[in-house]
Amino acid sequence: MARDGSRRRARQGAGARGDGRDAAGLKQLPWRVLESPFQPLEVLSPEQIEMISDAAFRILEEVGMDFLHPKALDILGKAGAQVEPGSQRVRFDRALVKEALASAPSQFTLHARNPAHDLPVGGRNVVFGSVASAPNVSDLDGGRRPGSQEDYRNLLRLSQAFNIIHFIAGYPVEPVDLHPATRHLDCIRDCLTLTDKVFHAYSLGRTRILDALELVRIGNGLSEAELAAAPRLFTVVNTSSPLRLDGPMIEGVIEMARRNQVVAITPFTLSGAMSPATVAGALAQQHAEAMAGLAFAQMINPGAPVIYGGFTSNVDMKSGAPAFGTPEYTRAAIAGGQLARHIGIPYRSSNANAANCVDAQAAYESQMSIWGAMMGQANLMMHGAGWLEGGLCASFEKFVLDAEMLQMMSEVMTPLEVSDAAIGLEAIREVGPGGHFFGAAHTLERYENAFYSPMISDWRNFESWEEAGSETATQRANRLYKAVLDDFTPPPLDPAICEALDDFVARRTREGGAEAA
Amino acid sequence: MARDGSRRRARQGAGARGDGRDAAGLKQLPWRVLESPFQPLEVLSPEQIEMISDAAFRILEEVGMDFLHPKALDILGKAGAQVEPGSQRVRFDRALVKEALASAPSQFTLHARNPAHDLPVGGRNVVFGSVASAPNVSDLDGGRRPGSQEDYRNLLRLSQAFNIIHFIAGYPVEPVDLHPATRHLDCIRDCLTLTDKVFHAYSLGRTRILDALELVRIGNGLSEAELAAAPRLFTVVNTSSPLRLDGPMIEGVIEMARRNQVVAITPFTLSGAMSPATVAGALAQQHAEAMAGLAFAQMINPGAPVIYGGFTSNVDMKSGAPAFGTPEYTRAAIAGGQLARHIGIPYRSSNANAANCVDAQAAYESQMSIWGAMMGQANLMMHGAGWLEGGLCASFEKFVLDAEMLQMMSEVMTPLEVSDAAIGLEAIREVGPGGHFFGAAHTLERYENAFYSPMISDWRNFESWEEAGSETATQRANRLYKAVLDDFTPPPLDPAICEALDDFVARRTREGGAEAA
Repeated sequence: MARDGSRRRARQGAGARGDGRDAAGLKQLPWRVLESPFQPLEVLSPEQIEMISDAAFRILEEVGMDFLHPKALDILGKAGAQVEPGSQRVRFDRALVKEALASAPSQFTLHARNPAHDLPVGGRNVVFGSVASAPNVSDLDGGRRPGSQEDYRNLLRLSQAFNIIHFIAGYPVEPVDLHPATRHLDCIRDCLTLTDKVFHAYSLGRTRILDALELVRIGNGLSEAELAAAPRLFTVVNTSSPLRLDGPMIEGVIEMARRNQVVAITPFTLSGAMSPATVAGALAQQHAEAMAGLAFAQMINPGAPVIYGGFTSNVDMKSGAPAFGTPEYTRAAIAGGQLARHIGIPYRSSNANAANCVDAQAAYESQMSIWGAMMGQANLMMHGAGWLEGGLCASFEKFVLDAEMLQMMSEVMTPLEVSDAAIGLEAIREVGPGGHFFGAAHTLERYENAFYSPMISDWRNFESWEEAGSETATQRANRLYKAVLDDFTPPPLDPAICEALDDFVARRTREGGAEAA
Repeated sequence: MARDGSRRRARQGAGARGDGRDAAGLKQLPWRVLESPFQPLEVLSPEQIEMISDAAFRILEEVGMDFLHPKALDILGKAGAQVEPGSQRVRFDRALVKEALASAPSQFTLHARNPAHDLPVGGRNVVFGSVASAPNVSDLDGGRRPGSQEDYRNLLRLSQAFNIIHFIAGYPVEPVDLHPATRHLDCIRDCLTLTDKVFHAYSLGRTRILDALELVRIGNGLSEAELAAAPRLFTVVNTSSPLRLDGPMIEGVIEMARRNQVVAITPFTLSGAMSPATVAGALAQQHAEAMAGLAFAQMINPGAPVIYGGFTSNVDMKSGAPAFGTPEYTRAAIAGGQLARHIGIPYRSSNANAANCVDAQAAYESQMSIWGAMMGQANLMMHGAGWLEGGLCASFEKFVLDAEMLQMMSEVMTPLEVSDAAIGLEAIREVGPGGHFFGAAHTLERYENAFYSPMISDWRNFESWEEAGSETATQRANRLYKAVLDDFTPPPLDPAICEALDDFVARRTREGGAEAA
């Protein structure tokens, strides 16, 4: 596999040619931001939304939430929340929360280094992100292992190469061979040099998020004012459910919101463990935590772009093990969309599963997650490609299979053409009863692009498939991911900017990077 | 594996105990007919439905359809259709079609030998059937092979054992070791003795369908009048697309409709081969063929129960190979529901895929089919469990995996409980910020049935899973299907009825069975 990160030929994307086929033989759909043509599905009635909303407000009014940072307590207190003296507990009147949320935009654009990869967020728009934050990585060749910089970079390359991946959702895998104090510097630089798509920075304390913002500023050739003028970076802030927001996360919210960068608040409400053992209870708590975090961001900077994250799933009640892509997860993903729209904020969901290998379970749990997200009208899908083991592993083969599944879903969301020409009554007349359409002019005109052409699915008959080696979809995905990496060319980048990024990383590394978060 | 078909202990179903756990360790959901809580998804606008409907009527008016049986031409001509002299071509005015369809019931009940297994068909009701009509069968132990009576019976046993399988959609696999002239006798007897659920008979000529009806009459202990009083048997009639209905199928429609038994008309509109290479064109042709067949059934017996079958998929335009669970398939499945509801007739879809083994492709293509069917508000799902290779193979492992997927979908379709008790504000107050819900009273009260409990999905962490042998979902399905067969007990049946069935089969076998269809 060629992994020469310094080969920076001036070619757009991952080597797409006029015919849509890459040198690696990857015939994929062109880049496009999706727009769902569907009415969002409703698992909650309007009355049920009101009940859950009311319960969420009561949680914030009566129980409150812990904000583990003095700056947060200061900001919240000044904004009118009740900070319990001598504690980190904060209670919110519902009027205060509503007022704060009213300033949050319902739609905004997340700008990429390559303007062709800008992402509209909100409304009916849908964008898919890579896997993020897995400590381990796996492929059929090397098995399961802790993530390295090499794996990290290769997953970035795949994220850049597949058009259906609209953004990098975080570090696809944690490169544990890099020192934690300077890892963020190397990783963000890689996002800016190996990809030209929107990416994410972790809220692991003030220093790291400021370094990330500075790298984004340099990478895009902007002044500080220009950076603050439009969203270019996003951070996902998980609450420490139940009802707690940690200090390093709070610092991220403060620095990002101040600069008009995007904060997604995603409660970690695993039903039965960190939230009640009912979907309704977990949703009420999710909604309370999300609203508190979103309101906090608006108190820092009214109008700052924010995203409502839904991640409610359930644990296995026998073992406590987290599960994903379950029926409860799917319904919570759909309901989460209803709750986010109820407060007028863009919605984030995930493509999750709890399988330990890339098998049928990995596929059907992922499908349950993808359909939940799409029917719930999620605007951003985190962990869109590569997630395995409830997030503990990033799989190269799963990445490619997910890209196939997401491409299929993007085609499902493409409006049907219904016209006289499309219906082809003349062709039906010409072929007549008992004929066939293979040679009809109507067919020949549409031969090339009539139907979705898969990257992985094998439709040969059993005999041909067996003769060719009886490969499973996972084995085919293994071959394809390696071919895509072999063919990878990084997107173009001004050498002066590249040098400035390198200089910044070198300087900050000499200074010792960031404190432990 | 114990496969003693004569062990007919007086036990309901497949040995469900009070705790829902079978002797084989199968903990499954209880039997229930599902009712979708969702608004059907719309891929067609009202204007697009009108366009497709109009095109379908024009096909029937201007092109016509071939009915390859003199009896059909006679019935159709008397009812007012234009039979082209000296040919089998029939054209229909739209007014005639509309008038005929107006007598078709929008809902009815399909009665099973066990009244607890009666199926309401239509409206928001949803029922799932087994795989049907595969020539080959496979499991991990025996590989892929032509179907035998042993395999056929084992798949019937699984269909009976899994509560989520509501009906037998046809011969799960073709028992090619049985003589074609008498195969239907043995097979239908097995349906009546190894299962007590609704089943299907093939329309392969008049003799076979009359034999099937007689076996159903005997098996249910009914008079002929009693049999004709309510639907107990159904037959799926595929058109020979484009625009042709074969003779043996026509005989099935005539005999079944006359006796108030259920006829499902399913056009075989593979887009690009047997219908235009556009979803819109394939749907227009599907709608034309379905309406013609359904109208024909109503002309035979106004009010006879009928079902609108949607099976539109596409071929691979490079090879001509049929594909299933594609984006085109999924949209056609959803649109098919809109077209069926447009004419007020219950809708049938499928759980289809084109994978050659039980891998990730098999799972994701099936999920695309299942979601298409459910979002399209299909009332019956054919091939719900066990279908592989575009229908050329019935897989034991896929059967079990599909049962898991269908159970999950049935839970997604279960309305959420939203109440003060479910939300559990008191539990959230009790646990408070930073605690956990494992020991909360609210959790302990719900411990047992809080969440869907899977049959196949493995949620253990990687290390435990690896230590236990790193089994894939398919390998776990292999173990489970064998355990279920080991534990199988046929449903109770009056020995006198059993004897009468055997006598009928013996007599008809002596007579030579049925002619070649």
